[in-house]
Amino acid sequence: MAEQVMLYEGKAKRIFSTENPEIVRVVYKDSATAFNGEKKAEIAGKGRLNNAITSLLFSKLMESGIASHFVEKTSELEQLVKRVTIVPIEVVVRNIVAGSLSKRMGLDEGVKLEKPIIEFYYKRDDLGDPIINEDHIAALKLATTEDLETIKEIALRVNDVLVEQFNACNVRLVDFKLEFGKLNDGTILLADEISPDTCRLWDKDTNAKFDKDVFRRDLGNLTDGYEEILKRLGGLSCSK
Amino acid sequence: MAEQVMLYEGKAKRIFSTENPEIVRVVYKDSATAFNGEKKAEIAGKGRLNNAITSLLFSKLMESGIASHFVEKTSELEQLVKRVTIVPIEVVVRNIVAGSLSKRMGLDEGVKLEKPIIEFYYKRDDLGDPIINEDHIAALKLATTEDLETIKEIALRVNDVLVEQFNACNVRLVDFKLEFGKLNDGTILLADEISPDTCRLWDKDTNAKFDKDVFRRDLGNLTDGYEEILKRLGGLSCSK
Ligand SMILES: Nc1ncnc2c1ncn2[C@@H]1O[C@H](COP(=O)(O)OP(=O)(O)O)[C@@H](O)[C@H]1O
Ligand SMILES: Nc1ncnc2c1ncn2[C@@H]1O[C@H](COP(=O)(O)OP(=O)(O)O)[C@@H](O)[C@H]1O
Ligand SMILES: [Mg+2]
Ligand SMILES: [Mg+2]
Repeated sequence: MAEQVMLYEGKAKRIFSTENPEIVRVVYKDSATAFNGEKKAEIAGKGRLNNAITSLLFSKLMESGIASHFVEKTSELEQLVKRVTIVPIEVVVRNIVAGSLSKRMGLDEGVKLEKPIIEFYYKRDDLGDPIINEDHIAALKLATTEDLETIKEIALRVNDVLVEQFNACNVRLVDFKLEFGKLNDGTILLADEISPDTCRLWDKDTNAKFDKDVFRRDLGNLTDGYEEILKRLGGLSCSK
Repeated sequence: MAEQVMLYEGKAKRIFSTENPEIVRVVYKDSATAFNGEKKAEIAGKGRLNNAITSLLFSKLMESGIASHFVEKTSELEQLVKRVTIVPIEVVVRNIVAGSLSKRMGLDEGVKLEKPIIEFYYKRDDLGDPIINEDHIAALKLATTEDLETIKEIALRVNDVLVEQFNACNVRLVDFKLEFGKLNDGTILLADEISPDTCRLWDKDTNAKFDKDVFRRDLGNLTDGYEEILKRLGGLSCSK
């Protein structure tokens, strides 16, 4: 049996090899970071919650016909996923104005957009993940035009499924970040995580925040919101 | 005869009404600004040079079949142009990596791009003219999808003509900014100015800068470069 080695340590997860070269093991960390790593903390329980929520949402997406790297949750902090080569683009989908969109464009937070906005960010911590357009992606050869079309199409389908899913839990999906990867055969696959670390989630009645903004803006206990999301989602689709 | 009133004063030009409601008079100023107005100076001769160069380039574009708002140069500092409603988008076309592209994306200045890159900036001084994508343009209703297609198409044609024109003067057209406007009948028209204030222009042999970067970076006498551009362009196409 091949030795398991850590392939990559990120801000929120560690990735390990497995005996199967096509599968890697993701271990969720309790670390929270914001503002490109300037603000940091260890928050007990966050890893467990993000692992549970991500596993649940990738399963839900699969039921709706959207494939992802997700294979199975194997323990509180761990899941097995298909190994991909990550496309170095963060894909942000927005339904409601918040965060950097509000600040950069002078728009009021909370305003519903007529149509979702897709934004691309170059996944480069050393450059502060700058926003880029499709010409930049082509110039930097980050993705082919065809792969980018696939990515946009999947991102919008993910949005449709998740908006409905969260809506049924009385939660507004304000915006979220996706990452995509490529299998060896060239298939583009949804990857990484979908959790309150990577989504903005607001209670539909009170606008209470159940996401990483609670950490970014010191709004209270972070894991309370994450627990609430897990409970609401689980109550609907994970009661098994 | 209707009184002529100042309709708008910008950083580089003043716009006045004329007796013809479809025509406005542009008066070029000697003011130089950079870094969103943080750096300022009066530079004698700049207005005259930008008026001459812009008039010459719009004439050249017209000869190549690209219409613009330009009607005629009427004096050293003045020109008459068709009045338009400006689309609040700055359209940047890049042939070679420089300036903010280099800084934001970690690319070396001077690298030739395989294909031109088009970037859009929201023309909002109070927000620092943020870079935007086509989804933002749609959300903010800055231009219709159709008008934006027209704008991109014209921008690339302008680039082709200007690259060739400058190439013939031994000058590299590194990048430039365009503005577009709408006539009352809905026609999209190239507007504003095309000058060393709005282009990066490098000598092909020495890479000497003939543009506003000389002011931004304190590289020497600004108008020397502008005079050189006017001379080189005039030597080719304005000897009359
Ligand atoms: N299926 C996968 N195969 C390989 N790498 C992956 C996969 N899914 C996610 N990754 C990568 O794992 C890394 C660790 O995740 P994370 O801690 O969130 O990193 P980061 O600090 O870059 O956000 C990220 O670079 C992410 O893109
Ligand atoms: N044909 C036109 N009709 C009306 N406005 C125009 C026309 N061409 C340019 N303008 C506008 O004239 C204003 C003055 O130009 P400028 O001094 O360069 O302004 P700014 O400080 O906004 O760059 C700008 O807002 C520009 O968009
Ligand atoms: Mg991450
Ligand atoms: Mg201007």
